[in-house]
Parts: sequence; C-alpha cells; structure tokens
Amino acid sequence: MKSPPDSTHQQTLAQWREQEALVRQRASGSGIIPPDLLAQRPGIELMQAIVSGALPVPPIARSLDFVLIEVEPGRAVFQGDAKFDFYNPIGSVHGGWIATLLDSCVGCAVHSALPAGKGYTTLELKVNYVRAVTQDSGPIRAEGKIIHLGGRVATAEGRLTDPAGRLYAHCSTTCLILDLAKG
Amino acid sequence: MKSPPDSTHQQTLAQWREQEALVRQRASGSGIIPPDLLAQRPGIELMQAIVSGALPVPPIARSLDFVLIEVEPGRAVFQGDAKFDFYNPIGSVHGGWIATLLDSCVGCAVHSALPAGKGYTTLELKVNYVRAVTQDSGPIRAEGKIIHLGGRVATAEGRLTDPAGRLYAHCSTTCLILDLAKG
Amino acid sequence: MKSPPDSTHQQTLAQWREQEALVRQRASGSGIIPPDLLAQRPGIELMQAIVSGALPVPPIARSLDFVLIEVEPGRAVFQGDAKFDFYNPIGSVHGGWIATLLDSCVGCAVHSALPAGKGYTTLELKVNYVRAVTQDSGPIRAEGKIIHLGGRVATAEGRLTDPAGRLYAHCSTTCLILDLAKG
Amino acid sequence: MKSPPDSTHQQTLAQWREQEALVRQRASGSGIIPPDLLAQRPGIELMQAIVSGALPVPPIARSLDFVLIEVEPGRAVFQGDAKFDFYNPIGSVHGGWIATLLDSCVGCAVHSALPAGKGYTTLELKVNYVRAVTQDSGPIRAEGKIIHLGGRVATAEGRLTDPAGRLYAHCSTTCLILDLAKG
Repeated sequence: MKSPPDSTHQQTLAQWREQEALVRQRASGSGIIPPDLLAQRPGIELMQAIVSGALPVPPIARSLDFVLIEVEPGRAVFQGDAKFDFYNPIGSVHGGWIATLLDSCVGCAVHSALPAGKGYTTLELKVNYVRAVTQDSGPIRAEGKIIHLGGRVATAEGRLTDPAGRLYAHCSTTCLILDLAKG
Repeated sequence: MKSPPDSTHQQTLAQWREQEALVRQRASGSGIIPPDLLAQRPGIELMQAIVSGALPVPPIARSLDFVLIEVEPGRAVFQGDAKFDFYNPIGSVHGGWIATLLDSCVGCAVHSALPAGKGYTTLELKVNYVRAVTQDSGPIRAEGKIIHLGGRVATAEGRLTDPAGRLYAHCSTTCLILDLAKG
Repeated sequence: MKSPPDSTHQQTLAQWREQEALVRQRASGSGIIPPDLLAQRPGIELMQAIVSGALPVPPIARSLDFVLIEVEPGRAVFQGDAKFDFYNPIGSVHGGWIATLLDSCVGCAVHSALPAGKGYTTLELKVNYVRAVTQDSGPIRAEGKIIHLGGRVATAEGRLTDPAGRLYAHCSTTCLILDLAKG
Repeated sequence: MKSPPDSTHQQTLAQWREQEALVRQRASGSGIIPPDLLAQRPGIELMQAIVSGALPVPPIARSLDFVLIEVEPGRAVFQGDAKFDFYNPIGSVHGGWIATLLDSCVGCAVHSALPAGKGYTTLELKVNYVRAVTQDSGPIRAEGKIIHLGGRVATAEGRLTDPAGRLYAHCSTTCLILDLAKG
C-alpha cells in the first residue's frame, strides 16, 4: 500500500526533519503561557514565541510528542511522529492523537489571528478519518487555516498529511472569541 | 464556580476511585490486541479481557493515563485524571485529551456490540466542548453508547462527566463495520 | 424491510395524526415572529403561540410541509410527511429535508429555554443519516432536547423517528445565545 | 453591513443569472433518475444529464427552488435564491435550506466521481453557519469538492457564497460508496 518514496517526497521529508530539529533545539521547558501575557499580547506573538523557544512548550505537546512548526496570522502547522505509545487496542494510532494534532492546528490558526485582549475557546471539533496512521507513517503534519473570522465566532479547517502528500484526516472547528482584557 | 461537594458526590467519587484502583491493579503490561484474537472473538470478550487484565492496556491509555472501567454490549466507560501534563498553552486541559477519552468510549461501545469476525474503523468524530477541564476537575468519566447498529455502519454518542454529574463535553461518531475474517 | 405494524404502532400513528390535525386546524397564516415580540417574550411563550395558532406558521414549515407539534422548556417536537416533492435524484427523501426538521427541533429546544431578551443563532449542525426516508415512511417526528445551556452557548441533540420507533437520523447542534434587548 | 456592489461583483452576478437562466430553460419536468440508469452510468454522466435537461430536475430542487449549475468529476455547484418562503420564525433563511444546498453540492461532488455500477449514501453532514442568509442575499452558490475518494468511503467539503464572495456557510460530509450493479 505504501508508495515508494520519490525524490520530492525525500526532499520534503528531509526538510520536515530539519525544521523539527531546529524547533526542538530552541525549546525551553514545558508549561502554559503566563495568564497576563495571554491577555495582553496578540495571538501571533504568543504563537511565534512558542516556536522560537521564548515561551515554553505546552504540556500536551510534550506528552504526545509533537511541536508547533510554523505559524502566521490565520495559519498554523504542527508536526509529530506516530509512535507505538499512541496506539489504540486495534492496531493503529488512536484517533485521539490525530484529533489532538488537528485540534491544535485549527485552534492556533484562530488564536494567531486574534488581537491583544482577545482569546478563544473551542466550541466543537469534527474530525474525518480517511486513512490509518501507523508507526510507519513517518513524520506527520497538521495544517490549520481560518475559514471565517467574525467578532464573536471563528471557524477553521485542518488537514493531516505526510511528506508524500497523503491525507490521513481532516477537520473543521468552531471557536468562540473571548474578551480577556477586563480592566 | 465549583459547587461544594455533597454527600452523593462524595460517594460517587469514592466508588469511582475504588473501581479505578481495582482495574489498575489487575492491568498487565501495555500493548495491542493480538491480530488473530481481534479477528476471531466477539468485541465484548476482547473489551472485557482488557478490563480484567487478561489483555494488555492499550498504549494510548498508558500515555494519556486513562482506563477502561466498564463495558457491556453497546456501552463502554473510560475514566481518567486531568493532569497538568495534558494542558494546552492557554491554561486548561487540551481538547485532544478530551477527544481521546470520548473517541475511546464510543469506539469501544461499537466494538463491544460486534460479533466475532467483525471489526470497525472510526470514520468521523464530532466533539462539543461545554466546560473547561482543569487539574481540579477530579476523575472524569467518558460514557459511550451505541445509537444505531447496522450491517455496514454504526453510530454512537458519548458524554464526559465528573462525579458531581457536571457535563464537560459530548460527542457523536460514525464507524464503518469491517469483515475481519477472510479465510 | 418494512416491519408489519403492530397495535402499539397503530395507536401511536393514530395519535400522531390526530395531534397534527389539531395543530394544522388552529394554524393561522404564514410568517415570521414580529421582531418586537421576539425580543420581549420568553422563547417558550413564542413557541407555544406557534403551536396554538396565535403566531403564524414559519414560511419554511409551509414550504416543506411540517409542523411544530409540542414544545416545553428545553424540548421541541416537529412532525412532517416525507413526500415525493422532497426526493433527491437518487430515489429517497433528500437529506436536506431531514436536516431541516432536525435543525428545527434542536433550535426550538434551545429557544424554548431562553428568557425574555435573549435569542440565539445556530453555529453548527451535524446530522447522522442511519436509514433512508421514503414516501412510505409515514409521518415522522423530530424531537430535540437541550444538552447544555450556558450563558453564551447552548448545545442540543435531536432524533428523527417514525411511529414504530425506527430511527432515521440524529443530530447535534451548537447555538450562540444573543442579547436581543438593547434598550 | 451589505458592501456596495463593485463592478466585479456585478459581472459575477450577471454571469450567475445568465447561467441559471440557461439551465432553467433546458430543464424538462421533475423526477428522480430512473433506477436502471442510476446503476449503469457513471455519476458524471447522470449529473451532466440533469444540467443539460436530458434528465428531470430532482423534486427537492423544485420545492426549494435551486438548480445544479455546473458539474465536473469531483466538483458540483448549485445555485438558489433565498426567498421569504424559506424563512425560519426568527427572521432569516432557515438553516435547513442552507443545509439542503450544501448537502446537494457535496453529495453530487462525490457522485460525479463514481464509475458506473457505484452509488453512494450520505452518512453524515456537518454544517457551519457563519452569516445569516436573507432575501437580500441575492443568488447564492454552494460549491462542493471531494476531499478523499476511497473504495468504501468518500469525504467532501462545500461552501456557500454570494457573487461578492461573502461566505455564508460551509460543510463537510462522509459518504458510503455502494455497489449498485448486482448482476
């Protein structure tokens, strides 16, 4: 079933590994964003500070071994390796690991588009699983993009692919936009 | 916001802790269901063998620290503790941890209703998040129930609650039923 | 495939027809709820006024031939007949007709729980289709119930069944709660 | 809120109206696809025969006043006018009308990619509503595209926009692929 890797695939794979190594090298500890920063900075600054290592790696990313690779306003990319540690009882990576990467990419896509004083909470996430992820799937990327950004609500979509461009899962989400600055 | 625990809540909490301790005590290693068993046994037997410790704990359950507590045909309950290790960058438990418990309970609810020779794969999962899960949420249960069981497709729903009955999230799923015995 | 109707089914069918006839008899014209009423009355009063004929039938209900049958706070039931007029090109009732009944029942379930001065808008609806609806399906009911009612967001679920209790589709929804009274 | 129409918008509007008039002019009666044709022809041929008027307009399209405008393998576009007849009680076009157009475009996108002997049924549809549709929204288009086409399951996404490019709603769907040719 697994297609033979062609040279483009190999180049993409090498680039993904390199980019991940760089991000992991700069990472500094694990933790959440300090609440005062969260309320006072635009989302894009906070997300970029996680990529650059100025802010710590979120705990879940450490537990499930994935990293925020790239972020720009309205778009965020996470990368992870599907390990045996994340397997379900029936022989492939658990849908929850996939949902975690997808939830991360669409949530960050929304957050990265919010100005200072605004936050968000995820109201719902729908994931479509179209191909099993296994230990052999290699590094996998979840790319999230905003679809709609309104005053109270935002929606976004995400896709999980490997370096060969194979699609494993996709999602859509609805986020509620919150006022964080109250005073 | 947190209601004062009343005596019913305390009893439920104690019962949940006790049940979890019993399951954890019997657990024997981590791993997947051997493929030949998976194809030859009714789902309910396999699920009950995980609860009783005759089959190993699925790797994801070890990584995200949750256990299968109860299973009967068409219904499955998982329990987990929301730890700081599962936090997102913005200060609460990541939606992916919640999605993992919910995906598990609805998937197992479907699997527990399948006869020998049949398996399933999750086509889609939609999660609604209605209350933030934090370190203080205590033990949390995800209960999944089959809604529809057809020849090719099954649907199920799940709810995530604490011992006080507070709802944190709910979900629905669509599973494709597969022929595993081909020989 | 169609089960022979038993006596309970026949009784339910007769009761559904009778209840529908009563509602249709009281109906007075077609139209929307006057905006000032919409902002000033609790949702349950408005919904009950549609059932009693004091407020007009919503235009969509006339176009797709269904009626609001019952409403109480947090629960609403619609009934419709699946006619050939609502068929898709491939030989059964279009999923959009089903989605319309389900969207109606969950939206009204939410609206019926809102106090005066509050309104809602539907953010998302997910429908699972589990059995084809045809001209022979007879009268069909969509029953919606609130799952979660918060200050800013509500969720609800709905099920579409026939008098024999057969399930055709189910759904979940997320609604945003709005302030309608602004001075 | 409504942006002043610029010249590009006006050109798109004129083109949409012209295309719709052409399709409506060729339309020949209302009805479903004859079952033997449905089983024996590739989906794209059937869909194109609806556009060209060689096959009748589906009943639901007549009841809710929309037309299939364009179809190519893996992509389908429907157009409709949001009329008062489709209003909900709270003053805008009912979400069910929107869901009907979106369900149509993603279902046809899937059908248009299926070879002779294959059919499909929709397992689930999730719609996100991001802007109210009113009588003043003008002609609206639902464009569906396949995301994943497998042997047993396909997924697709759809978007509802006006000639100015404003997004009103978007959706994703899961379809089960069926064998129609049985001898």
